[in-house]
Amino acid sequence: MEKSKLGEFHFETEPYLLDFRGRTMIPMIGNYLLHAASVHAESRGFGFLDMSERHTAWVLSRLAIEMNEFPAMSEEVIVYTWVEDVGKLFTNRCFELTNQAGTPFGYARSIWAAIDTATRRPTPLDVEGLNEYQMERPCPIEKPGKIAPVENKTEGQVYQIKYSDLDVNGHLNSIKYMEHLLDLFDIRLYREKEIRRFEIAYQSEGTYGMSLTLHADEVSPGKYDMAICHEGKAICRAAVTWQ
Amino acid sequence: MEKSKLGEFHFETEPYLLDFRGRTMIPMIGNYLLHAASVHAESRGFGFLDMSERHTAWVLSRLAIEMNEFPAMSEEVIVYTWVEDVGKLFTNRCFELTNQAGTPFGYARSIWAAIDTATRRPTPLDVEGLNEYQMERPCPIEKPGKIAPVENKTEGQVYQIKYSDLDVNGHLNSIKYMEHLLDLFDIRLYREKEIRRFEIAYQSEGTYGMSLTLHADEVSPGKYDMAICHEGKAICRAAVTWQ
Repeated sequence: MEKSKLGEFHFETEPYLLDFRGRTMIPMIGNYLLHAASVHAESRGFGFLDMSERHTAWVLSRLAIEMNEFPAMSEEVIVYTWVEDVGKLFTNRCFELTNQAGTPFGYARSIWAAIDTATRRPTPLDVEGLNEYQMERPCPIEKPGKIAPVENKTEGQVYQIKYSDLDVNGHLNSIKYMEHLLDLFDIRLYREKEIRRFEIAYQSEGTYGMSLTLHADEVSPGKYDMAICHEGKAICRAAVTWQ
Repeated sequence: MEKSKLGEFHFETEPYLLDFRGRTMIPMIGNYLLHAASVHAESRGFGFLDMSERHTAWVLSRLAIEMNEFPAMSEEVIVYTWVEDVGKLFTNRCFELTNQAGTPFGYARSIWAAIDTATRRPTPLDVEGLNEYQMERPCPIEKPGKIAPVENKTEGQVYQIKYSDLDVNGHLNSIKYMEHLLDLFDIRLYREKEIRRFEIAYQSEGTYGMSLTLHADEVSPGKYDMAICHEGKAICRAAVTWQ
């Protein structure tokens, strides 16, 4: 049976997992995307366990999400995902989010690397194997770009990594980076505006008890550059556009 | 078509939603239970939207979870849920968690009240309507009990409620109470022991920016009483047994 190159995943928003506006939060969208990526890769022989057997692991390097609207209560969210291209060290995976009527309301782009689980260093991808699943399909949002440092321009809010922040590798969970960054914004912004684009570049791993500073700087109206730092060095950068 | 009184829900643990031990965390178990309760109630005409139409809302008052083991990666989790009894103001809903082989590895008990959404005060339940779904089935764990105050015995860790903590009513999300409490335990406890029983009693609502103190006191070996307080008054109490 030939498996389609396009993964299709269905979710339904849940009442107790919405924010105070009754909308799905960006980290929950991130969860949907990671779930889709994870199961889609798994069904094609490149899942977490397949990678583990080869002493490798996927590492999310960058993620950009653009949303025209955020799903409300008990709405169906359909996520399509596909591999756009595969390079020696990085692969691009795209996402389209549509509602039940088939209308797209968001897109996302992600960049993944594989690491050797012993050395934690990047390892070459199985370009040939992965390329079998590559497909052409429009993903009409900008690729993740360069984000300027902000840690020297802002004081930063202190945060210490806790048990609930850790993923299965014992590192700060990808979704928790998002959550802590988005908590920097005053609640009034959430009342008055919407996040149109959220972009994040993961640079290094956070570990238990690590003391972090969280930074946000409004570089132009509604556009924020952000960073999470440890001892003055960024472990991730992010950019958020409000509208 | 007669709907079964016993709800059955299937989940699969996801690699990026496990803790550093590769195990499902208590808050994620809580998510499974709330999902099951929510959809089960909905399919019987007592869901979030049905309640909203009557200007009422379900409020989780107490929850006790007992786990013999915690699901690992890519394991199926089957949650059975049923209404044990219905009183004038409170209803008891039970849960059984089994693995794919049908072996139970956990049970939970929850107590729910309904509030009037205008006054935020308890409102009488539709005892007759709810009783149609009541069923007998063993749930072999102790009911949620009284938890002693600990806030005067321990200093408490300060926490301020953030955007990502809020639920659709603008209050501290039930799952986030758990998460913040469990983060009080040192990582060594998670390395060496397992949580056998987690019990929580929700007392009042946390709101945005509210300054909280988080308390834990080891009352006997491996047994902790806990509280979340605002201005010295508990907004919830919890008890955790490690083994």
